[in-house]
Amino acid sequence: MNIVISGLGIIGGSYAKAIKKYTDHTVIGINRSERPLKMALECGAIDKIGTKEDLKTADMLILGTFPMAAVEFIEKNGDYINKNCIVTDTCGIKGKICPEMVRLSEKYGFTFVGTHPMAGKETNGFESADADLFVNASCIIVPCKADNTAVTFVSDFVRTIGFTQTPVVTPQVHDRMIAFTSQVPHVMACAYVLSPVCKNHKGFSAGSYRDVSRVAKINAKLWTELFLENKEPLTAELDTLIDNLTQIRNSIANNDDQGLCKQLQMSRQVKEELKE
Amino acid sequence: MNIVISGLGIIGGSYAKAIKKYTDHTVIGINRSERPLKMALECGAIDKIGTKEDLKTADMLILGTFPMAAVEFIEKNGDYINKNCIVTDTCGIKGKICPEMVRLSEKYGFTFVGTHPMAGKETNGFESADADLFVNASCIIVPCKADNTAVTFVSDFVRTIGFTQTPVVTPQVHDRMIAFTSQVPHVMACAYVLSPVCKNHKGFSAGSYRDVSRVAKINAKLWTELFLENKEPLTAELDTLIDNLTQIRNSIANNDDQGLCKQLQMSRQVKEELKE
Repeated sequence: MNIVISGLGIIGGSYAKAIKKYTDHTVIGINRSERPLKMALECGAIDKIGTKEDLKTADMLILGTFPMAAVEFIEKNGDYINKNCIVTDTCGIKGKICPEMVRLSEKYGFTFVGTHPMAGKETNGFESADADLFVNASCIIVPCKADNTAVTFVSDFVRTIGFTQTPVVTPQVHDRMIAFTSQVPHVMACAYVLSPVCKNHKGFSAGSYRDVSRVAKINAKLWTELFLENKEPLTAELDTLIDNLTQIRNSIANNDDQGLCKQLQMSRQVKEELKE
Repeated sequence: MNIVISGLGIIGGSYAKAIKKYTDHTVIGINRSERPLKMALECGAIDKIGTKEDLKTADMLILGTFPMAAVEFIEKNGDYINKNCIVTDTCGIKGKICPEMVRLSEKYGFTFVGTHPMAGKETNGFESADADLFVNASCIIVPCKADNTAVTFVSDFVRTIGFTQTPVVTPQVHDRMIAFTSQVPHVMACAYVLSPVCKNHKGFSAGSYRDVSRVAKINAKLWTELFLENKEPLTAELDTLIDNLTQIRNSIANNDDQGLCKQLQMSRQVKEELKE
C-alpha cells in the first residue's frame, strides 16, 4: 500500500516507524514544518516527503494531527484524495470529529474509519516517536458510516503494527470511556501538582507520587482542545470523582473509621475483580 | 549488631532481607503469627526466631508493624529493651506516634529515632518482601528527642541497606509532606476506581489509567489507620486538590479555553521546574 501520514508528531511518527518496521508498505510523510520530515526521511521512517498530489495514489491516509487540524487538512485537500482511499484519524475524541469526517467523506468519496491509538508518552514530537509504541496496546475503532469490510481492513492493519485489542464502538461510547480512562487521569495529575507542597516533594515521595503526577507534564494546547471537545462526558466523570473524593475526605474529617475502611475496601474490590 | 525486627510484613521483611544481603548484622525476627517467621528463617532473612528476651541484647529494634501496634509492642515489652538500644519505627505517620515513643523511651531508657522508608508495593506480607525494596529510595528521619549521634547512626545504617536520601524533619513537617506525596495519591486512586465506568475500562485504557489506579489495590485496614492519624494535614491537602479539580472542571464546563490552557500550562511548569 501507499500510506500517507499527515502530521509526524509522536503519534504520526510512531505510525511511520512501526509501518516501516513491521510491514512492506510505502510511507509518505506530510507535515507543516520541515524538520520532522527530514528527521523521518533520514531514519527511514518515511520513504519520501509528500505533497497533496500523493493523496491521488494513496491507499490509506492517516491523520496524526490535533482534532481540528485533522478536519482542516481534509477540508483543504479533499479534492486530491483517491476515492478508494481509507482515511483514519488518531484523535482522542470522536463525538466532534466523526460527524465532520463523515460529512467530508460523503463530499469527497473516500471512506472514513475513526481510530484512537491508546498509547502515548509525556513527551511530544517526532523525537519521541517509537516503532514499538503500539505493541500490545489497544486501538479503538469508531466506524461511523464505514462498512464492515473497511472496519475489518483497518482493524487488521493496526494489528500488523503492534496493536492487540481493537474494540469497535460508537463515538458516544468512545468519548464516555475516554473521559474516564484517559482524560480524568490527566486532569487529576494537573490538579495534584498545583498543591503548594509539590515543589518540595523530593526526599518525601516514592512510586505513588511519581505515577499519579507523571502526565502532569501535559501538552497544554492539545489537551485544552481534547477536554473542551469532550465537555459533557468529562465534566460528568469529574463530578463523580469530586463526589467520591469528598466522601472519603468527609469520612476522614469525621473520624468515621468504619465508613472509611468500607470505602477503601470497595476500591480494592474493584481492582481485584478486574484482576489488576 | 544484634538487630531485632518486630513485624515481618512487606516492610519488616524487606528490612530483614536487605540487612542480610548488604551487612553482617545478626537479624532476629518477632511476629504475631508463625508463618512469616518460618518463611524468613527458611530463606535466610532472619538468623533466628526471637522472643522478648532477645530485646535485652538488641543493639537495634526495628518496628515493622502498623502504628498503634508499634506503640503497643513497646508498652508490653519496654522492660526488656536494652538501655543502649536504638529503637526505630517504620510508620507512615509521625505526629501521633512520636510523642508516644518519646514518652516510652524516657520511661524505659532506650533511644527512639523515627524513620519512614518511602518504599512499598501494592501487595502485602512477607511474600512481597524484597532485599532491594529500598535501593535508591528515601528514608525520612524524625529525630524527636534523639541526639545527633543517634540520628547519624540511624542515617548511616539505613544507607547501608540501599537508601540514598535521608532527610531529617520534625513530625509535623513529615506528616504535611506525606499527606501530599503519599496519602493523597492513595485517596485519589481509590476515589477514581469507584466510577461506575471503571469496570468496563479494558480495551479503552493505557498508561495513565494504569498508573493512577495502581495503588487503589489498597490495604484498607492499614490506610484507614494512617489516614485518620493524619487527619488535619490530609483533609487540608484533599481540600486543595478538590479545589484545583473544581477549577479545571469549571473552565471546561464554561468553555474557557484560555483559562483552561493556563491551568494546564501551570501544571506542566511545576513538573518542568522539578525536572521530572
